[in-house]
Amino acid sequence: RVNADRLWDSLMDMAKIGPGIAGGNNRQTLTDSDAEGRRLFQTWCDAASLTMGVDTMGNMFMTRAGTDPDALPVYVGSHLDTQPTGGKYDGVLGVLAGLEVIRSMNDLGIRTKHPIVVTNWTNEEGARFAPAMLASGVFAGVHTQDYAYGRKDPDGKTFGDELKRIGWVGDEEVGARKMHAYFEYHIEQGPILEAEEKQIGVVTHCQGLWWLEFTLTGREAHTGSTPMAMRVNAGLAMSRILEMVQTVAMENQPGAVGGVGQVFFSPNSRNVLPGKVVFTVDIRSPDQAKLDGMRARIEAEAPKICATLGVGCSVEAVGHFDPITFDPTLVATVRKAAEDLGYSHMNLISGAGHDACWAAKVAPATMIMCPCVGGLSHNEAEDISKEWAAAGADVLLHAVIETAGI
Amino acid sequence: RVNADRLWDSLMDMAKIGPGIAGGNNRQTLTDSDAEGRRLFQTWCDAASLTMGVDTMGNMFMTRAGTDPDALPVYVGSHLDTQPTGGKYDGVLGVLAGLEVIRSMNDLGIRTKHPIVVTNWTNEEGARFAPAMLASGVFAGVHTQDYAYGRKDPDGKTFGDELKRIGWVGDEEVGARKMHAYFEYHIEQGPILEAEEKQIGVVTHCQGLWWLEFTLTGREAHTGSTPMAMRVNAGLAMSRILEMVQTVAMENQPGAVGGVGQVFFSPNSRNVLPGKVVFTVDIRSPDQAKLDGMRARIEAEAPKICATLGVGCSVEAVGHFDPITFDPTLVATVRKAAEDLGYSHMNLISGAGHDACWAAKVAPATMIMCPCVGGLSHNEAEDISKEWAAAGADVLLHAVIETAGI
Ligand SMILES: NC(=O)NCCC(=O)O
Ligand SMILES: NC(=O)NCCC(=O)O
Repeated sequence: RVNADRLWDSLMDMAKIGPGIAGGNNRQTLTDSDAEGRRLFQTWCDAASLTMGVDTMGNMFMTRAGTDPDALPVYVGSHLDTQPTGGKYDGVLGVLAGLEVIRSMNDLGIRTKHPIVVTNWTNEEGARFAPAMLASGVFAGVHTQDYAYGRKDPDGKTFGDELKRIGWVGDEEVGARKMHAYFEYHIEQGPILEAEEKQIGVVTHCQGLWWLEFTLTGREAHTGSTPMAMRVNAGLAMSRILEMVQTVAMENQPGAVGGVGQVFFSPNSRNVLPGKVVFTVDIRSPDQAKLDGMRARIEAEAPKICATLGVGCSVEAVGHFDPITFDPTLVATVRKAAEDLGYSHMNLISGAGHDACWAAKVAPATMIMCPCVGGLSHNEAEDISKEWAAAGADVLLHAVIETAGI
Repeated sequence: RVNADRLWDSLMDMAKIGPGIAGGNNRQTLTDSDAEGRRLFQTWCDAASLTMGVDTMGNMFMTRAGTDPDALPVYVGSHLDTQPTGGKYDGVLGVLAGLEVIRSMNDLGIRTKHPIVVTNWTNEEGARFAPAMLASGVFAGVHTQDYAYGRKDPDGKTFGDELKRIGWVGDEEVGARKMHAYFEYHIEQGPILEAEEKQIGVVTHCQGLWWLEFTLTGREAHTGSTPMAMRVNAGLAMSRILEMVQTVAMENQPGAVGGVGQVFFSPNSRNVLPGKVVFTVDIRSPDQAKLDGMRARIEAEAPKICATLGVGCSVEAVGHFDPITFDPTLVATVRKAAEDLGYSHMNLISGAGHDACWAAKVAPATMIMCPCVGGLSHNEAEDISKEWAAAGADVLLHAVIETAGI
């Protein structure tokens, strides 16, 4: 078993970097805090005798050598970046549990045939630069590096410039590494494990996602002196589309979600009807037909809603992945590890997207999950217990040893 | 008649300060551009031999002496501040037409019994610091100066600090001045004069207003892994309230408007359901019962909408004035001036709020309006013709001479 206290202490130490305003973290990707978090992780990896490689997307690969010079590495990892008002565990747990697996193997003098690589993927959250899982996406060949470098944050700064600014452009070609297997350990970010009183989620699938970005064009006009009949009200159109997205998601129950997290009114002045409203829609389902059906319906209905108001409507898909089926052999390995360790477990479909979704394109991959309090994530109040954290790390340790071979 | 070319040239010169991005202006109150605009206006007033007084709210009073030492001044004025994406004429026309009236009287050697004071009121727009007409409101005793100084812009800067920063805190006590009469000339900002092909709006009333600021409290949560039934979705509640405001306004037709210009999602991240949504509602009517009825209904229905979603709802009234009836004698003076000059005219109810609304609390007051293209205002594309501008200025000249006495 891993050292639960050491894992927890590292989680608490990392949480000191980029503190939030309500007990969580704001360590958004490619900020100074991100750079500081990377350096702390690097220090810990140095102390654990790992060798660092960094690719041109800033992905960090910390290698523990194997005994077979020809064997491909087993990768474990997740991300150290957070939401603007994020929790202390989302992503961080997976990276630091990977490190804890290595530390435990060092303590126990365990050597594996395959090397083990602990990975920190850049910009998993996608909060600052859409889409999410951007750097693992380039690694997996889903996006080009040029596309990624050109992504802009809301202030107009590009991913490429910001990666350079914080000093984490590595020299490795992205995606050149080949993987024997990829494991990602993550908090559930949903309510199921806690409700079912299970310690371990054996993740068999991940639901698919579409991120749609709408730009509605109305006519800026005075809120007081513009008669109702003369308004071209982009804000009203946004409201109706938001309600429609809710309806579409509800009509696809069970097994679908839909919501809006980001809205920009322009000029955003109290006495001006907005001339432009930009907002994002996030729809997900583990069922490919439902997912694509929801997208088609939203993209068909939104322009109709806008047309009745004279509002212009354009939509761009800024993030997407199809539902993922994880590797059955690795899934079985995780389930067996949980059983051997005596941890209660159940199968899960991941509600959130993860770097594992892209890794699954280029290698056998799967995930392990632990519960989180109230299913809450993307909230500074996100919470887990030391015991929950350690149980999943134990499963990760066993699954990695099984897959990397002794 | 005034000098139409000179008035137009001054309008174009002022528009060079704080240019917008689409041909209009961004000369928001208490910015460096506002300070620059004030200095240009001061230079012009110096050249016209006016004496400057500035009060502790930054209101500028440019006085042309009268022949009777005991007579109270006739005030003319409006505002030089603009919306973030504002037009070149909203407010500016009233101040520079006031100056043009003085210049024309200087040219013609006309002396009046009562002094004439051209006024530039601070922060009429209310876009940066709510409420609108803030400084004329303090002048009229509607707000205290402490209240005004403490108002914050979206960056958290206060009115008091920003007024000091741009160097326009004067030494006069606010509201100490007494007025014989107050005239404000303004573009209509609505479609009626153009549609009715009238040159002059004789403004008999101004509709009343409530600005409501809603703060909705949901629960920040992951857009992907949070099941629909577990969401406490403040964004959805906002949408439903926006739709409800639209319904309330439509059910009060004719003679009412309602809309939302400003929305802030927090944390405003694509994959986070907003934990907090702050937005503003603007409702207006010339009918007091309708106005207050709309407010009561919105404030009653919004918490019900929120309750069905588990969302917290609080509302603050951040701006208000009752419907105004302008002074019948001054209204008749304006109508007669238009008739004497041979300008087509009609009675109007102002759709927008104006400093004249507060001036009317402490003095006989009225307004003159000219058409604007398409009724469009609070838009950089706001437009008028030189002839339209001059016609209203002619009426202002005649009305002022009539009221100030020769
Ligand atoms: N795990 C996680 O929150 N990833 C961010 C991408 C997503 O929104 O699913
Ligand atoms: N005239 C004008 O646009 N004033 C701003 C206050 C309002 O919204 O009516």
